[in-house]
Amino acid sequence: MIDVCLLGTGGMMPLPYRWLTSLMLRYNGRSILLDCGEGTQIAMKKKGWSPNPIDVMLFTHYHADHISGLPGMLLSMGNSERTEPVLMVGPKGLERVVSALRVIAAELPFEIQYKELTEAEETFDLPGDKDFHITAFRVNHRVTCYGYSFVLDRAGKFDAGRAQALNIPVRCWNQLQRGEAVTRGIAAAAAQGRNGKGKEQTPVSMQEIYLPEGASENEILWTPEDVMGPARKGLKLTYCTDSRPTESIVRNAEGADLFICEGMYGEEDKEGKAREKKHMTFLEAAEIGRKAQPGQMWLTHYSPSEMHPENYIPAAQKVFPRLYPGKDGKTTVLNFTEEDS
Amino acid sequence: MIDVCLLGTGGMMPLPYRWLTSLMLRYNGRSILLDCGEGTQIAMKKKGWSPNPIDVMLFTHYHADHISGLPGMLLSMGNSERTEPVLMVGPKGLERVVSALRVIAAELPFEIQYKELTEAEETFDLPGDKDFHITAFRVNHRVTCYGYSFVLDRAGKFDAGRAQALNIPVRCWNQLQRGEAVTRGIAAAAAQGRNGKGKEQTPVSMQEIYLPEGASENEILWTPEDVMGPARKGLKLTYCTDSRPTESIVRNAEGADLFICEGMYGEEDKEGKAREKKHMTFLEAAEIGRKAQPGQMWLTHYSPSEMHPENYIPAAQKVFPRLYPGKDGKTTVLNFTEEDS
Repeated sequence: MIDVCLLGTGGMMPLPYRWLTSLMLRYNGRSILLDCGEGTQIAMKKKGWSPNPIDVMLFTHYHADHISGLPGMLLSMGNSERTEPVLMVGPKGLERVVSALRVIAAELPFEIQYKELTEAEETFDLPGDKDFHITAFRVNHRVTCYGYSFVLDRAGKFDAGRAQALNIPVRCWNQLQRGEAVTRGIAAAAAQGRNGKGKEQTPVSMQEIYLPEGASENEILWTPEDVMGPARKGLKLTYCTDSRPTESIVRNAEGADLFICEGMYGEEDKEGKAREKKHMTFLEAAEIGRKAQPGQMWLTHYSPSEMHPENYIPAAQKVFPRLYPGKDGKTTVLNFTEEDS
Repeated sequence: MIDVCLLGTGGMMPLPYRWLTSLMLRYNGRSILLDCGEGTQIAMKKKGWSPNPIDVMLFTHYHADHISGLPGMLLSMGNSERTEPVLMVGPKGLERVVSALRVIAAELPFEIQYKELTEAEETFDLPGDKDFHITAFRVNHRVTCYGYSFVLDRAGKFDAGRAQALNIPVRCWNQLQRGEAVTRGIAAAAAQGRNGKGKEQTPVSMQEIYLPEGASENEILWTPEDVMGPARKGLKLTYCTDSRPTESIVRNAEGADLFICEGMYGEEDKEGKAREKKHMTFLEAAEIGRKAQPGQMWLTHYSPSEMHPENYIPAAQKVFPRLYPGKDGKTTVLNFTEEDS
């Protein structure tokens, strides 16, 4: 499950009725923030989500409307007494830009770690989380800019009948479900009581079954493959702003349950302006949706001149019907499909 | 006349229902902004005032809640095609801090000029405006911090009877009212027609009266003192945040028509916390009001924990009755007193 909130939908400058484009994801107790323009921390508070558990901040690029809210956000995180490090990810120059902005946010009670993107496409995991994968892919803006895809894996279905047939202690099932192998030593401890501190069984029977004399404690008895079915469809979310349409966006948005994409201008006749400013019209974004076929697609990063983006949605939906207008605070929960839960 | 708008009243961090403390002044087509935290440009748009004509930005100090909105504000000023230079005033370090923040606002179509404050108290005028005086005075915060007073002079009353008695051409009256002397050359041109291009009079009579043969065009005929009464009471506004109470604040707020002062905490028992954080309670601020006796006083820079500042106003009004709670967007017009207009 991934909680998704599009905190704002504006481009260029914050408006009284529209926060700057920013996305927040929450899963497994982690929070991830994508872009942080002026006012993002206010939008987050308005939503009722906290900046404190943000582990990772990703930046598409360093135009002010995507990073100007960073000093205030960092100070608010500090004021909420966060001490865990924060990982920042963004194009080359990240540490230089963040360090400059920190002239007004020098004292923080937590460490900032940097990952600067250098390749056209990079996939990486977050520390201590092998089920969640982030892919950064370069897009086409006036400065170096990246889109991001997030994939949350889903393990295969656990086969309890098979586990019983293999005589695996119930206390070891969870470990196998988590994707970890079970050794003789672990099995013996589990049979004797969790970590050997539970109710004692007769040492003889335990040793006979799981740890006979001369056997190694480290020998692997069962692996997840013994009891887990094939991996099931996970969840995927793709986020891209600011860019002209590119093949890399289409390819990375393929298979996404939710694809959030910039749409700077609603009017068809603004394609020239979109081309000049290295942005997209709604129709150009819809065309990416038509090619990539995500589960659904939200537009965001509207021009300040675009007072009523919803007026231009019907035309874009003719190109890709599952396209919807992003709105400030628009929220959804991406759930694993029910049928095989 | 000075238009005054307290754009926000928050301290420390912006909240969904409270912008960060910032003040905007408008007079004679000029705009002045004091402090510019995250979201100030949104508060300004909400008020319907434009960032484009801001000539001067003054900073009390460089904690993020007083300057984090600067990069976005500068970009919005640039987007509105401003080309005139902007003067920035603040404590030592101003150029270093602004230059660092401009890592995300590098390209601007206008020049930034800097005036760094070094004295405990400095009075200066704005270029081309000898009637408006700004005094910066050092206060007492965790970092170097200044308060500001603004004085708009008011000339004496024009004596039309005296001008007629002196035989001054009506076309020269405005020049004298503006505080400028009138020379023989100007008087002759005025009598002949504005800039010599108006309806012609007989050159002989004009020369006889104002520019007889052998006289110098540059000889001063009349000075403002000939026709203007003594200077009348002008307007004064004083702004001070963040600080402990100081004698300098009292002295500088004396005679102010409006005194805007920080009040971080409403609760009396937070005086210890105020002392520690180098802020003030409402009662401490009210005590400054009682001593300085401004026309009226507004509190601002409330702690984020202060949900209902208005609850603590009655107690503060017992100390200084003309004290009122600042509110986001609170506006007034300081007018010259009517009786001698």
